[in-house]
Amino acid sequence: MSHLKKVWPKLILIGSSSTQYSFSADGCWGSLLANFLQRKCDVINRGFSGYNTRWCNKMIPSILSEFDAKNISMVTVFLGANDSNLPTNKQQHVPLEEFKQNLLEIVEKIQSHGVPREKVVIIGPPASNISAWEKDCQINGRVCTKSNTETAKYAKACVEAARESGCSSVDMYTEMVKEKDWENMLNDGLHLSSRGCEYLFDLLKPVVTKVTAELPMLYPDWKQMEVLLLYCCFVSFVYWSIAAP
Amino acid sequence: MSHLKKVWPKLILIGSSSTQYSFSADGCWGSLLANFLQRKCDVINRGFSGYNTRWCNKMIPSILSEFDAKNISMVTVFLGANDSNLPTNKQQHVPLEEFKQNLLEIVEKIQSHGVPREKVVIIGPPASNISAWEKDCQINGRVCTKSNTETAKYAKACVEAARESGCSSVDMYTEMVKEKDWENMLNDGLHLSSRGCEYLFDLLKPVVTKVTAELPMLYPDWKQMEVLLLYCCFVSFVYWSIAAP
Repeated sequence: MSHLKKVWPKLILIGSSSTQYSFSADGCWGSLLANFLQRKCDVINRGFSGYNTRWCNKMIPSILSEFDAKNISMVTVFLGANDSNLPTNKQQHVPLEEFKQNLLEIVEKIQSHGVPREKVVIIGPPASNISAWEKDCQINGRVCTKSNTETAKYAKACVEAARESGCSSVDMYTEMVKEKDWENMLNDGLHLSSRGCEYLFDLLKPVVTKVTAELPMLYPDWKQMEVLLLYCCFVSFVYWSIAAP
Repeated sequence: MSHLKKVWPKLILIGSSSTQYSFSADGCWGSLLANFLQRKCDVINRGFSGYNTRWCNKMIPSILSEFDAKNISMVTVFLGANDSNLPTNKQQHVPLEEFKQNLLEIVEKIQSHGVPREKVVIIGPPASNISAWEKDCQINGRVCTKSNTETAKYAKACVEAARESGCSSVDMYTEMVKEKDWENMLNDGLHLSSRGCEYLFDLLKPVVTKVTAELPMLYPDWKQMEVLLLYCCFVSFVYWSIAAP
């Protein structure tokens, strides 16, 4: 079976909690992608809850070190939900200018690893349902440091960073707030619900379809198995009849 | 960040359609495992719809060739739903004795690759809702060649093969038919529904928990980030104060 690829292509999801939870029932956009790309590509989760671009920027070489660039079909970078916290959240907040610079550096590092920019997608942070998130924070003894005015600026910076670095972008914030029921796209006010994940998947689908268009289905369809076996028998027969001594 | 693991551990799911579809909304047991093992282990789908043990047995070396044994945390082998078709289904049917022998050879090949038998789980085929599957076959112009009497024999062979080869087993058939609503565990009569996948996940959980008990959470919790950065600063300070010239 030497004609078969030994290493399967990878789609690597880099990000924060919405990426880490992307195989859960609610946050299912990773599962949706894995299902969409079955028999073509592995979907690899490198999401780290609570992380911002400052930390992820440092981690990119370590994250990518286990993958050979030629096997990477696509990389998503889904950050900003933590960076865009108000400056009072000293641990997670990253100033807007630094955020954009970090994104540019992240894309540059991915490219340095050998992944062409056409295969990189920056996903901007979603809007938050502030009153729901405030309630969630209260219950869990935390202070709400989210504001959609701030998130909108970070979402814009994502689009700019993608344009400047020549990669694709999905502007989740801008797209979702066009919908009447956008608050249903979140579960606790901050994280994506299954409705939100399906919406994100629909936004990603054209990019993923384009980038993975050349990927073949791996291993033959079972209905072709008998035909293949017959073909192998025929080739062996011809070989032994003609070429063998 | 040299203290961090470069290659993440892998749980490899080998099987037929119920494995190939394991990241779909209905057939979600792969997603459930991926969510359960987030930040610990990648769940890799090597499911091939329609395949039997005869074909998978040949493919095992090729499937495993891309993975270093030391990174494989666990392997599931979920086959038998196709092998156990009646002999009139010439393409998929595999005689019972050969089926068991193929399973033994599959486990042996996985062990030869360097994966200890304790990390291998054979999952037996589920029962079928024959009348529902007959309807589905009729609609799609196929002949129904499934029988639960046959499947029960193949399920038993899975348990025997696991015992003889010293690996774990999950007897899906026997366990599910104990439940009153077992027919709800299937969607088209043959493939697992989300109820069936949750049931399978519950059966797998003790084995997965045991086998992956030693796996650490990869990369620090974000709440420890500041502490870690302070620690790094302190270590650097001590180094430059004492060791540096």
